[in-house]
Amino acid sequence: MASAEVKRGNDDLRECIDNCLACHRVCMETLTDCLARGGRLAEPGHLRLLMDCADICETSARFMLRGSDLHSRTCFACAEVCGACAAACEKLGNEGMMKACAEACRRCEASCRRMSGGVMPHPINPEAAQRAADLPA
Amino acid sequence: MASAEVKRGNDDLRECIDNCLACHRVCMETLTDCLARGGRLAEPGHLRLLMDCADICETSARFMLRGSDLHSRTCFACAEVCGACAAACEKLGNEGMMKACAEACRRCEASCRRMSGGVMPHPINPEAAQRAADLPA
Amino acid sequence: MASAEVKRGNDDLRECIDNCLACHRVCMETLTDCLARGGRLAEPGHLRLLMDCADICETSARFMLRGSDLHSRTCFACAEVCGACAAACEKLGNEGMMKACAEACRRCEASCRRMSGGVMPHPINPEAAQRAADLPA
Amino acid sequence: MASAEVKRGNDDLRECIDNCLACHRVCMETLTDCLARGGRLAEPGHLRLLMDCADICETSARFMLRGSDLHSRTCFACAEVCGACAAACEKLGNEGMMKACAEACRRCEASCRRMSGGVMPHPINPEAAQRAADLPA
Repeated sequence: MASAEVKRGNDDLRECIDNCLACHRVCMETLTDCLARGGRLAEPGHLRLLMDCADICETSARFMLRGSDLHSRTCFACAEVCGACAAACEKLGNEGMMKACAEACRRCEASCRRMSGGVMPHPINPEAAQRAADLPA
Repeated sequence: MASAEVKRGNDDLRECIDNCLACHRVCMETLTDCLARGGRLAEPGHLRLLMDCADICETSARFMLRGSDLHSRTCFACAEVCGACAAACEKLGNEGMMKACAEACRRCEASCRRMSGGVMPHPINPEAAQRAADLPA
Repeated sequence: MASAEVKRGNDDLRECIDNCLACHRVCMETLTDCLARGGRLAEPGHLRLLMDCADICETSARFMLRGSDLHSRTCFACAEVCGACAAACEKLGNEGMMKACAEACRRCEASCRRMSGGVMPHPINPEAAQRAADLPA
Repeated sequence: MASAEVKRGNDDLRECIDNCLACHRVCMETLTDCLARGGRLAEPGHLRLLMDCADICETSARFMLRGSDLHSRTCFACAEVCGACAAACEKLGNEGMMKACAEACRRCEASCRRMSGGVMPHPINPEAAQRAADLPA
């Protein structure tokens, strides 16, 4: 691989780690905010997504920080969960804390999606791959 | 869904949680054992896999314990990491602690593979799905 | 140290690890149950305690599984959080899931309290115990 | 409490969260670096401290992000582990990655020590501080 590509790969990895750690933090803060404000913000499905997202972002960051060969798998899971969490926050008004959370989730989703294709910068379609796994036997 | 199927789904879920938590524990114990014994057992790649496996098993268990809709994604990542960790332990002699760890990883891999296909008991082929995601753009 | 004492120390350690991992699991299950049932069970303070307890139990178990010298510190924190979580579950009716959670928390609290003071079985005062555990042998 | 004090308390809390998350990250990076470079850097005791430190920093940050009443306990444990990890990195040459890690650990230790005593800025004695923090207002 040419060194510009290696460099680019490292920048993408570093950016993805940053995005995962930032997303982990904002999900934890949003969870606290939702618990305090109650109502629709504290519905079980939403709280669960925020907890899911904080946990997988943390694990995904750990895999990348360790230089793990299998980070594409945790990045794939992370992209999926971030996408769902962003959609939930956008539906809940998408302002203030919800807006900040949705934006952090979308950024993390995008960079994890990129990392989930392994060495390739832009895999065609990881969702299709997961859909294939979801087909009935 | 007929209630026997629901029951079976719950049994599979509970067994998968048990296997993830057991695998998390044995990976942590094996890591400690490898650090103490050194040599080939303490090679970076092996220690990293044991840490990876402990972390994703914990996260995968949390998703299932929370009843998360997206547990199929974390189970998929978990199955992949468990498979790699089992292979590494089998290559390193596959006796004593290594053997116990490889067995726990294989059990966890099998049940996570099953859960990663969502509601279906035996998805055709999750590896093919991941391979598709790995194709060049 | 005589070998019976070493053996006893190992048994206590193993039991404490078991109790931490069991408490981590039941707190996660109780959290899911509380979210599903709502009302007083899903009050922010209670959900927060269940999350706190699951997290510190996991970290406390990891320190012991790694054979860390500093596990007395994480065990001290764990005993304190488990005690608070048990009290909250007992106040919320102490039956069904709440009762199971309170019992697991009390068991974990007792063994972590023991580990946090080093060799002493029942410290009157945990901080004094911590100081005692730090004295040169 | 006067509002300047509340403000100050919040600033301290926010700074402590920042320091915990930064320390968690640098410990993970240092662990990877130590595994890659081997030798004295990869001795079991050192790797264990880096793993301990990453784990308790993460848990300590979670307690504060959740606004948990019991964060003084996890901050106390975190300060103790960070101090030990910093000392280990300083002894191992204290340059490059080791120096960056030691500095992040010292910063985290200082702010966690402060948080572990509640409102007091510089406890002489952390256990005494803990007792003071527990007194009725």
